[in-house]
Amino acid sequence: KPQNERQRLPVVPQGIERDEFLKALAELKEQLGQENVEINDKPLKDGWYMEHPNTHDMMTILDEEEFVASAIVYPGSTEEVQQIVLWANKYRIPIFPISMGRNLGYGGAAPRVRGSVTIDLGKRMNKILDINAEDYTCLVEPGVSFYALYEAIKERGLEDHMWIDTPDLGGGSIIGNTVDRGVGYTPYGDHWACHSGLEVVLPTGEVIRTGMGALPGNNTWQAFPYGFGPFSDGIFSQSNFGIVTKMGMTLMPNPGGHEAFMYTFPKEEDLAPLIDIIRPLRISNILENVAQLRHVTQALAARGRPRTEFYSGSGPMPSEAVHAAAAKTPVGDHAWAYYGMSYGPPQVRAHKLALVDAAFRRIPGARRIDPSTLPADEYFWARDRVARGVPDIHELRWVNWQPNGAHIAFSPVSPIRGADAARLFALGKEAHERYGIDFFPAFCVGLREMHLIVEIVFDRADAGQRKAALACLRDMVDEAAKLGYGEYRTHLVLMDQVAGTYNWNDGALMKFNERLKDALDPQGILAPGRCGIWPKRYRGRGWEM
Amino acid sequence: KPQNERQRLPVVPQGIERDEFLKALAELKEQLGQENVEINDKPLKDGWYMEHPNTHDMMTILDEEEFVASAIVYPGSTEEVQQIVLWANKYRIPIFPISMGRNLGYGGAAPRVRGSVTIDLGKRMNKILDINAEDYTCLVEPGVSFYALYEAIKERGLEDHMWIDTPDLGGGSIIGNTVDRGVGYTPYGDHWACHSGLEVVLPTGEVIRTGMGALPGNNTWQAFPYGFGPFSDGIFSQSNFGIVTKMGMTLMPNPGGHEAFMYTFPKEEDLAPLIDIIRPLRISNILENVAQLRHVTQALAARGRPRTEFYSGSGPMPSEAVHAAAAKTPVGDHAWAYYGMSYGPPQVRAHKLALVDAAFRRIPGARRIDPSTLPADEYFWARDRVARGVPDIHELRWVNWQPNGAHIAFSPVSPIRGADAARLFALGKEAHERYGIDFFPAFCVGLREMHLIVEIVFDRADAGQRKAALACLRDMVDEAAKLGYGEYRTHLVLMDQVAGTYNWNDGALMKFNERLKDALDPQGILAPGRCGIWPKRYRGRGWEM
Ligand SMILES: Cc1cc2nc3c(=O)[nH]c(=O)nc-3n(C[C@H](O)[C@H](O)[C@H](O)COP(=O)(O)OP(=O)(O)OC[C@H]3O[C@@H](n4cnc5c(N)ncnc54)[C@H](O)[C@@H]3O)c2cc1C
Ligand SMILES: Cc1cc2nc3c(=O)[nH]c(=O)nc-3n(C[C@H](O)[C@H](O)[C@H](O)COP(=O)(O)OP(=O)(O)OC[C@H]3O[C@@H](n4cnc5c(N)ncnc54)[C@H](O)[C@@H]3O)c2cc1C
Repeated sequence: KPQNERQRLPVVPQGIERDEFLKALAELKEQLGQENVEINDKPLKDGWYMEHPNTHDMMTILDEEEFVASAIVYPGSTEEVQQIVLWANKYRIPIFPISMGRNLGYGGAAPRVRGSVTIDLGKRMNKILDINAEDYTCLVEPGVSFYALYEAIKERGLEDHMWIDTPDLGGGSIIGNTVDRGVGYTPYGDHWACHSGLEVVLPTGEVIRTGMGALPGNNTWQAFPYGFGPFSDGIFSQSNFGIVTKMGMTLMPNPGGHEAFMYTFPKEEDLAPLIDIIRPLRISNILENVAQLRHVTQALAARGRPRTEFYSGSGPMPSEAVHAAAAKTPVGDHAWAYYGMSYGPPQVRAHKLALVDAAFRRIPGARRIDPSTLPADEYFWARDRVARGVPDIHELRWVNWQPNGAHIAFSPVSPIRGADAARLFALGKEAHERYGIDFFPAFCVGLREMHLIVEIVFDRADAGQRKAALACLRDMVDEAAKLGYGEYRTHLVLMDQVAGTYNWNDGALMKFNERLKDALDPQGILAPGRCGIWPKRYRGRGWEM
Repeated sequence: KPQNERQRLPVVPQGIERDEFLKALAELKEQLGQENVEINDKPLKDGWYMEHPNTHDMMTILDEEEFVASAIVYPGSTEEVQQIVLWANKYRIPIFPISMGRNLGYGGAAPRVRGSVTIDLGKRMNKILDINAEDYTCLVEPGVSFYALYEAIKERGLEDHMWIDTPDLGGGSIIGNTVDRGVGYTPYGDHWACHSGLEVVLPTGEVIRTGMGALPGNNTWQAFPYGFGPFSDGIFSQSNFGIVTKMGMTLMPNPGGHEAFMYTFPKEEDLAPLIDIIRPLRISNILENVAQLRHVTQALAARGRPRTEFYSGSGPMPSEAVHAAAAKTPVGDHAWAYYGMSYGPPQVRAHKLALVDAAFRRIPGARRIDPSTLPADEYFWARDRVARGVPDIHELRWVNWQPNGAHIAFSPVSPIRGADAARLFALGKEAHERYGIDFFPAFCVGLREMHLIVEIVFDRADAGQRKAALACLRDMVDEAAKLGYGEYRTHLVLMDQVAGTYNWNDGALMKFNERLKDALDPQGILAPGRCGIWPKRYRGRGWEM
């Protein structure tokens, strides 16, 4: 994609004149140092995953100048975050914190409100404050990525002692991913459930520590999440109630062995019975990690080749073409592929794998893929790494499916039930056909629920494709809500819509969230609109999209 | 203990004249029905565990008329709870919700503020709204006890399919125990972590559903706890921010086998090395449940006989006397007993039990007790039941140690480390010696932390014993805090003191809690003072104790 001249300069936060804004920035520069405050007036460089921008969403779904920051600031400490917050209150300037800004598929580094001042926490606040090999915990700042933690554990010679849990891509921030309630693929995959202890700067500038962190001199901040009294951590996830400056995370003891496995299933209709087979195995922890059931189209895309290598027509790639191409891959043709990992010593694994094998083979045509037949750069090995906590970026490959590949996610939650899977699959497939888009469904099976993750890959330089992708998403969100399914997380552009589907009892939960927002952030400066929560000053003024 | 005449009648909520209060009650009677509003002016009947009072704390640590309700109301539905809340706001009457009121050791059924109107939710709101055998979940009202859920599962023939998790005593409310962040003894022992979805009446009368419950027509309220946006459940635990009227709970699949085991260790000094042995086994889930390491004095008391049968002197029972008595029991003499359970089919258990055995035998004199040598009413079998989710009340027996036996708990959290265990043990022992009280320590080992549970058993008819127990507790709370240990939960009488120990950064967390309290409960009617949180109207007016 060509790098465009900026079209809509200057970017100034809403509600403040340009001159006053520049004066305010000058004041902030004095506090933080010149080099730690940058105005966003240069061309928007998309870069790539490892060199991502912090000025905007590099995978933009709207016009690229829509979700952009007016300036970026780089605090070096919790105290500096407090200073920024007080500054924002003084001038009523919207601020938007990011840890690393790799929230791709959900808005990247971009703020929800155009012209917000982005607080890039991770650039300077990137220390691993503690790794505790006895308690299997760590304490990190926002700039610590899954890669960085993994490397630090290796450096200390602890990689055989304890594992981290990483999402598909290892370049994200542990804090950023966790506060957005992201997931990984070891038994510690529910990052939110695995964290212990937060340090939070409130929108009015005070700093609190949650859990045992509130007890001076404690040695349990990372060992016991709850502390005494209300357990408030949850309200700092998927919200705009505070800025997390430190977080404790638990680490997984080496389980004493592991073994990745893969099965394929021949027909699309195998989905429903397969999901019903998976449910009891998953809830009983015979299947121990968030495992993925992927559709063949995405498996094909995960090879990292552009779609045009397989098919040159327009509209969704026909099923026959997909299967023909899949048949030529090392895994062979299939409709669904299940990627799993078994943990523990050989005799314990053998017990579990035998149960899984007997159950999966009830699907006619089920095949267990022998890993030794797969070349080293097969996607299977990326899953093998991720499911044992080794950060990776292989997953990025399917973004190449389109030129200027970008993507955006639809991720509804359902029970682990065949009927629900079939219903969501049909809903997604129809919507994609309606808009002529290839359909990449993957079911991520949690403990009692699954997320269907549908990634729409589009050419971000093509306004038509962007529009189609967004329309397709909006349809799916509404249609899913009608059937009782809601998203677990969403992109900036869909936040109002998704929040609007959680409207039981006349929107009681959102009214409650707004009450908290107004109490904690009376000036409405922190990430207005994030997750659909608008502060008082913005409500009813048409900010929703 | 004799039943006394009431000394301090009438009991009227603070800030309202008696006549107006009676008028207000009459108004409430019209809404809820005469029979559902009771004034508390009759003698205070302590009853016993299974017939406990809802008017006061049956195990009172202060004068029995201190923590008493002015009236009790029995809502029959969420709408009636809303009506009560609106009524309380109208007259500014403090209300105090209990689910069943069996919070013994932490205040029983009593309100924190004398003269509050107690909302006994459980009496009429006691339905199991759903048991889902596919998802392994249930949805319950406040009056559903662990016993009741267990019986319902049996009635449906599901007892071989799924387990509940129960605390030591099965008569408590699933909701009451969980919102106070109680624990049980299967792998699902962290009740808070295992719940999914709340319905909450806010202090201003609105009703919200959290998680997926906010999405109309959803089928995932009990399957996925988080929903979209801020995850607010936590602020309704150990707080006074809302009244929980429904809660989802996850249930454990039958693990395919189980085997209770017990080890004893001869010396008090074995504690520290033993805890260090336990830590990696527990974090790796080789030891799979919240397991208990109990001191011999409590083991002796757990036989259910009064202390006078073993020793007639005053002051703490001497160590020699304890050991002499223990030597005559089926388990034999010891200093510490470890109660554990291994789950799964035989070959999987064998793997884990072999690791445990090798590790525990590193303590000289460690003995594995052969369960077949233990009679049917041994405490071991109560632990066996509880650790496989069968509700029980054997645990009550040690309350008989003193006549008119009552008890109150000190429960600080520490890492699973020998040095911490030894420090807390010494602290507790010294304090007990100072006050001439028998010391009953039990370490409950969670995943990365342990709670030391010290139960002080006292004669509640003896003002001197009550005073000594309380003074001993207050000393322990302060001394523990100085060393960095804080309580995970506490009795009404200690709430201010314990909350005061969580005072990092000039009490920032409490100021934050107060901010939430004032936003959610501007009139300050809901459970003022619970967990140390006082609404604005009460602050700085000497309500703390
Ligand atoms: C190919 C591909 C695969 C992916 N797979 C996964 C996956 O398996 N699992 C998964 O979870 N995600 C996945 N993602 C999404 C995303 O890449 C990750 O979740 C990533 O970790 C998020 O970016 P980040 O960690 O840099 O967070 P950030 O972008 O720093 O943070 C995310 C958001 O959280 C908020 N936030 C961040 N830090 C703070 C803070 N300190 N205080 C308050 N609020 C804050 C901000 O609103 C921010 O926008 C995938 C993306 C792609 C492109
Ligand atoms: C011998 C003995 C052993 C024990 N062992 C254990 C143990 O192993 N584990 C353990 O956790 N506890 C234990 N306890 C403590 C106690 O008995 C249990 O926790 C019991 O379940 C709590 O009583 P309850 O369930 O009736 O709750 P309730 O008394 O109904 O509730 C407890 C408190 O929570 C609040 N609350 C209750 N319901 C609501 C609601 N719906 N909305 C808002 N707030 C509410 C109220 O402030 C109430 O006072 C033990 C006690 C004894 C005497």
